[in-house]
Amino acid sequence: MQSRLIHAMAVLFMIAFSFGGSGCASAHRDPLASWNAGPVKTEIVAFVEDVTDPGSVNFVPAAERIATFDNDGCLWAEQPAYFQLLFAIDRVKAMAPYHPEWQSQQPFKAALDGDMRALAKSGERGLLELIMATHAEMTTDEFAETVRLWTETARHPVSGLRYTEMVYQPMLELLEYLRDNGFKTFIVSGGGIDLMRVFSEEVYGVPPEQVVGSSIKTAFVMTDGGPVIRRLAEIDFIDDKAGKPVGIHRFIGRRPIASFGNSDGDLQMLQWTAAGEGRSLCLLVHHTDGDREWAYDKESHIGRLDQALDEAARRGWTVVDMKKDWAVVFGGAPDLVVSR
Amino acid sequence: MQSRLIHAMAVLFMIAFSFGGSGCASAHRDPLASWNAGPVKTEIVAFVEDVTDPGSVNFVPAAERIATFDNDGCLWAEQPAYFQLLFAIDRVKAMAPYHPEWQSQQPFKAALDGDMRALAKSGERGLLELIMATHAEMTTDEFAETVRLWTETARHPVSGLRYTEMVYQPMLELLEYLRDNGFKTFIVSGGGIDLMRVFSEEVYGVPPEQVVGSSIKTAFVMTDGGPVIRRLAEIDFIDDKAGKPVGIHRFIGRRPIASFGNSDGDLQMLQWTAAGEGRSLCLLVHHTDGDREWAYDKESHIGRLDQALDEAARRGWTVVDMKKDWAVVFGGAPDLVVSR
Repeated sequence: MQSRLIHAMAVLFMIAFSFGGSGCASAHRDPLASWNAGPVKTEIVAFVEDVTDPGSVNFVPAAERIATFDNDGCLWAEQPAYFQLLFAIDRVKAMAPYHPEWQSQQPFKAALDGDMRALAKSGERGLLELIMATHAEMTTDEFAETVRLWTETARHPVSGLRYTEMVYQPMLELLEYLRDNGFKTFIVSGGGIDLMRVFSEEVYGVPPEQVVGSSIKTAFVMTDGGPVIRRLAEIDFIDDKAGKPVGIHRFIGRRPIASFGNSDGDLQMLQWTAAGEGRSLCLLVHHTDGDREWAYDKESHIGRLDQALDEAARRGWTVVDMKKDWAVVFGGAPDLVVSR
Repeated sequence: MQSRLIHAMAVLFMIAFSFGGSGCASAHRDPLASWNAGPVKTEIVAFVEDVTDPGSVNFVPAAERIATFDNDGCLWAEQPAYFQLLFAIDRVKAMAPYHPEWQSQQPFKAALDGDMRALAKSGERGLLELIMATHAEMTTDEFAETVRLWTETARHPVSGLRYTEMVYQPMLELLEYLRDNGFKTFIVSGGGIDLMRVFSEEVYGVPPEQVVGSSIKTAFVMTDGGPVIRRLAEIDFIDDKAGKPVGIHRFIGRRPIASFGNSDGDLQMLQWTAAGEGRSLCLLVHHTDGDREWAYDKESHIGRLDQALDEAARRGWTVVDMKKDWAVVFGGAPDLVVSR
């Protein structure tokens, strides 16, 4: 009787310990189950095991395990158009009744007609006008609510899925695997910071304060109804290309030891990461799967991957071959084949 | 024999559980030991217990427990001059051999002569010149190293202590008490962000990525020796007064539920915090202790506390009477009386 009691207590004791330590309960499943075995998966795991091993010369204390992820094309699909542009076009349509002049004025006419060629022809200046008209002249709370409502209802133009279902399952697993190993995960994207913050926590497990992105200026204003922060029609910061290391320094104040991107817009972020002391992991997602997703690189207007791919080859950075390395692309619909 | 074994295992079992849960081991000591009993300590504890109680209507999930702290005069002493100005003056002295023209050029001459009146007369423009000459035109790594060396050796002009020993013990306990209750603690200061980040983790337990402050512009530059981030002689952002809620929105992206300040520069941060939905804690440190520290408020040039004190009275914000509410001011030297 007593020996059974001892056994029962020993079992309870082990349970207590296994709940105490993090990750023990999941030690038997593969945290990167959607990644096929191969050199890329091996490199990721070897890096994480090395920098978290207190006995390794490459050991990095948990506080310095900063990992930065691009968003569009790295964590979720960016084809056939960036999420933010589709949001802006939908907003133009919703706001059009209050702006009759838009019926004949570019780039708004192009947005209303869904004429992507005319929109592209309006250039950077046109896109900026579109962004300002739809992202500014309201409070931060109003903007967040607009994004929230849109994200809940809008559908991807090709797959018909919600945008937040167009995330890459292998990258979700990678985010979680890094966090389980003491990393702090950040998004560092050219996209609008206040747009991504609305869903980053729910979709990626990345809280708003760990999102770095492009921004417009804001101002604190005291109104009769209390204080508000107003969004102004003026660019504050473009978090792309050479802006990414600047944004990382400004918002995080530490150099990442691991960075993940997919386009030339991420090149400088990877260069900055690679130039740190100690071991680092620089990884590019190469979109090679025209069946399950989209295949594009050097010639693409969206998410062009050209110089960064060359530099990855020269410097031995890790390059994901989406077709070969990912067993699953979109987790919400494991068998989804994007139909075009 | 077996009953002793059972007892031993039961003890181990309890130990295992008490290590598993956070904070159990310290349940018997007062986490705010340097705070005297009184309405202020009671208000702080009542707020924390309320918003962390899942059964309370005021419960706030851990992810939303954002607390923001001013630095100068709130976490450490700001008299007789801001840390950053003293740093700039010391830098001017160190750099003077390379700038013979400074011997006759204001505001540099004033800094070299230690003539604080002449320095004050040079106005905002003069101070800006001083900051730019000492904070810019170098890489971010070089600047961090300069600050690190200075912080290790420089002494407070009145107490003779190292600046990092001029921190308020009750505020250190408050930071830790909040973190132990699931809060994420941020510094939101008018001081230079890259200056504070050098010591914030060691001194306050606040990592660089949770420091918000004033900044100059930077640029990513590829050099023969690899990529660097250069600090440019151009103001990027002033994180003071109405800039504080703007900085909070930009860097954190969530509204704090607790904010701690000590001057009119913190008024808008407290207004923004108070205007959130649900229960909040807005607290001002009132410097009332001319014996152990400095006594100043409405008339002070440094850390003026005037409008914010009036608004605190009107709106029922918590006001710390340093003399009455703090059993200890500087923890490193419990009996220190600042001698003047």
